[in-house]
Amino acid sequence: MSVLIVGSTALDSIKTPTRENPRLLGGSASYAAVAASFFSPVNLVGVVGRDFPKKYLELYRRHGINLEGLQVSDGKTFHWSGEYEVNMNNRRTLSTELGVFERFTPHLPESYRNAEFVLLANIAPSLQLHVLDQIRSPKFVVADTMDLWLNIALPDLLKLLQRLDAFVLNDSEARQLTDEQNVVQALKKIHQLGPKYVIVKKGEHGSIVSGPDGLFVAPAFPLRKVVDPTGAGDCFVGAMLGYLATHKGDIDKKLRKAVVYGSVVASFCCEGFGLARTTRATRTMIDDRYREVEALVKF
Amino acid sequence: MSVLIVGSTALDSIKTPTRENPRLLGGSASYAAVAASFFSPVNLVGVVGRDFPKKYLELYRRHGINLEGLQVSDGKTFHWSGEYEVNMNNRRTLSTELGVFERFTPHLPESYRNAEFVLLANIAPSLQLHVLDQIRSPKFVVADTMDLWLNIALPDLLKLLQRLDAFVLNDSEARQLTDEQNVVQALKKIHQLGPKYVIVKKGEHGSIVSGPDGLFVAPAFPLRKVVDPTGAGDCFVGAMLGYLATHKGDIDKKLRKAVVYGSVVASFCCEGFGLARTTRATRTMIDDRYREVEALVKF
Repeated sequence: MSVLIVGSTALDSIKTPTRENPRLLGGSASYAAVAASFFSPVNLVGVVGRDFPKKYLELYRRHGINLEGLQVSDGKTFHWSGEYEVNMNNRRTLSTELGVFERFTPHLPESYRNAEFVLLANIAPSLQLHVLDQIRSPKFVVADTMDLWLNIALPDLLKLLQRLDAFVLNDSEARQLTDEQNVVQALKKIHQLGPKYVIVKKGEHGSIVSGPDGLFVAPAFPLRKVVDPTGAGDCFVGAMLGYLATHKGDIDKKLRKAVVYGSVVASFCCEGFGLARTTRATRTMIDDRYREVEALVKF
Repeated sequence: MSVLIVGSTALDSIKTPTRENPRLLGGSASYAAVAASFFSPVNLVGVVGRDFPKKYLELYRRHGINLEGLQVSDGKTFHWSGEYEVNMNNRRTLSTELGVFERFTPHLPESYRNAEFVLLANIAPSLQLHVLDQIRSPKFVVADTMDLWLNIALPDLLKLLQRLDAFVLNDSEARQLTDEQNVVQALKKIHQLGPKYVIVKKGEHGSIVSGPDGLFVAPAFPLRKVVDPTGAGDCFVGAMLGYLATHKGDIDKKLRKAVVYGSVVASFCCEGFGLARTTRATRTMIDDRYREVEALVKF
């Protein structure tokens, strides 16, 4: 079963004290699509400009990502540039050029509209809603977000939440959305906004899943070196949905495994700039780490 | 098998926006001893002043804690007072009166000197070493510490580390000790200082154990409300050692279970001021939460 993924498709320029990495493939949909592609075929929805490098279109295709829903518009591709501090923990934005993203209205090809598994990766909630409106009878819809939308588009986000099966956000966003410091209480409040499943990402501390089966605490894969955490959250939710779409059975029964696969693919993402390391991963390498996580939590 | 626990025995006055809790039973050894007592008999080593309330001696005794090694000295009991901010996340020290602790030289009763399972709870490393010198042939020695000793007594601490089986510290202390941001690398460096097992506490994010069997990631028990985290780390290591001392088999094989029991007892500790909630816990309640943790990580 293929998955539909909509989100941003961008070029990221990432500076570190020792290196410059200009115009890497970035954007929430790019990360999520590559991550999902290890598990299922992907139908991508996004927009790029005429300047979008051919090599990135080839990269998508190599991962079996269907580009029928990728608009190529007159103008420049969304470009983000940022800089890391010496300890690699803090990143600051140098510039954000929206380019063709400013006028993006996602229009789904007919062949996408019967999608059952849908990921609304991080973009404006109004665009996430617009995509959802075009899908006939989705079976499982998950959305990710960011603090920006909590600040400037909360009414749209609340509308979206009522239509989701699962909602993914990080711990500080969960606190901001619910005005609740305690994560268990925050999860409870987010359920009341709509989603049956709520997944809180905590970076190196793993994630917490809340659903009808209670709580699930998933560890992050312990890495010896984090090169660049950009996109790890997008890989997490992309891999998670990719796994859910191809494995049979109730969502309740397979969500925990899917979340662990999400953590594992996110760990590869952190080991290289942009998608450099993720695209060199294989399903075998992913399965090996999955088994390492099994051993990591056994007692 | 009984455990020997040395550390501070104190009175804590804890202020919150709505309540004052004067002269609660506190100190690393008090927390650790009560926590260990759910699993094994405890031989306590510490010092209190003539002002130490009888009710706390009774509390120790109710938990089967042997007080032969508790000195009662002329002078006042170590008294710490602190205040919580409105959101209960930040605590600031209002005063620290060392009292009889200033001249404390732990002297072990003869009956304590054959101890096999030893917890050197948080006190000055020189005192931890002094206690260790008096034990004939310890089988398993674990020590806890705090940032203060990293700052003012590092040479003693490094001497101590060479004689430990296990070392427990929190994540910021692990970073400070190793000058390493990455926790996996920090664990590796701490092993090189001596201990076979290193356990990094991460508060609400659980703990990471490193030993010959690789890494173990233990979740914290997810609490709906944290009332007072004071002493949770001491309860963690106390319960851990108590479990290790009474259950047969290799340390390697039972350490993970012991750490989960540590997390569970620490969770009770966080639910009340001082030891208020911990002392009302029962082994049945602890076992119930242990099983909840099993369900929490299963995938």
